[in-house]
Amino acid sequence: MTSASTATNITWHDGHVTPKERAQLLKQKGLTIWFTGLSASGKSTIASALEQHLLHKGVNAYRLDGDNIRFGLNKNLGFSPEDRTENIRRIAEVSKLFADSATVAITSFISPYRADRDSARKLHADASIPFIEVYADVPVSVAEERDPKGLYKKARTGEIKEFTGISAPYEAPENPEIHIRTDLVSIAEAVQQITAFIEKFK
Amino acid sequence: MTSASTATNITWHDGHVTPKERAQLLKQKGLTIWFTGLSASGKSTIASALEQHLLHKGVNAYRLDGDNIRFGLNKNLGFSPEDRTENIRRIAEVSKLFADSATVAITSFISPYRADRDSARKLHADASIPFIEVYADVPVSVAEERDPKGLYKKARTGEIKEFTGISAPYEAPENPEIHIRTDLVSIAEAVQQITAFIEKFK
Repeated sequence: MTSASTATNITWHDGHVTPKERAQLLKQKGLTIWFTGLSASGKSTIASALEQHLLHKGVNAYRLDGDNIRFGLNKNLGFSPEDRTENIRRIAEVSKLFADSATVAITSFISPYRADRDSARKLHADASIPFIEVYADVPVSVAEERDPKGLYKKARTGEIKEFTGISAPYEAPENPEIHIRTDLVSIAEAVQQITAFIEKFK
Repeated sequence: MTSASTATNITWHDGHVTPKERAQLLKQKGLTIWFTGLSASGKSTIASALEQHLLHKGVNAYRLDGDNIRFGLNKNLGFSPEDRTENIRRIAEVSKLFADSATVAITSFISPYRADRDSARKLHADASIPFIEVYADVPVSVAEERDPKGLYKKARTGEIKEFTGISAPYEAPENPEIHIRTDLVSIAEAVQQITAFIEKFK
């Protein structure tokens, strides 16, 4: 059912565009790449390199991270257990919207709780959108040694309470799609591993 | 500052991709087209036709509306004044993220309060992202006659309380970028008017 106006050269059909139509028109399929790992595990570094690599290939990719979420959409959330869960819930909903728009959504948050990540996974599964969990794995000792923002130091002195890996739990993924030991592989190798994996969803 | 791995053919630079780089790589600039108007004013019909028209031109466009927001990101919000404001705040933040990703974000919500729309506008202005307010204008009598979902009827009988245009205010835009009398122009004409307007942001 197509409505067309020859005068204006504008064509559309009743109802909304389907995911299949969108993928065909944009020649791209959306999915979500969900990074999880300790602070200073290398999540954001790899996520940023991955985003750039995909953009250079002409693939629309977009990264959600603390910079554009914590001070925007989620600026009215704190760090209570309820707020942490709501933080991840909103990120999951937004990444799903991006993936639905045929973008490669890349999220880069510690997301320490298995239940929250599983909820994000289910949300995508229910919409038949691929969800790729990437575990940026590094021993706490290595992350603590890196400590680019001095956060581990503050956690050790107690200046920061409930810091993941020190004074709050990190629940490692049991069966992530991709497991990267970020102290053992290069950024390029990590990006290559992920891009090779997502090839199958093209 | 570019890091490259010739072995893997993966190139990136330190820090994050800039909006300018993204626009160049994707050959597309993002912006937000914010529809406002009464229930049954034709917002969603025009928004959907616009989205399809842009997708057919290969432009990544994505529509945020009640279907994908109210039952997802904003499912924990009701209809109290605070929740209505938070509803529009989150939609504004998400449309800004889409526009930042070089997508044409199209929002289709009644958004009856001027202050809420002005907040959305300011959020975009602060990030130097174009914000185009489209007023889908129709006399209440015409919207009530259309009443495709029977909502006006329920509002008149009191079954629905605080219904915009009947028992709750609609604050019309004073200076929208685009003003469409949806009872006087065709869908194709409306889409053409909007696409002509956004040409200047290419």
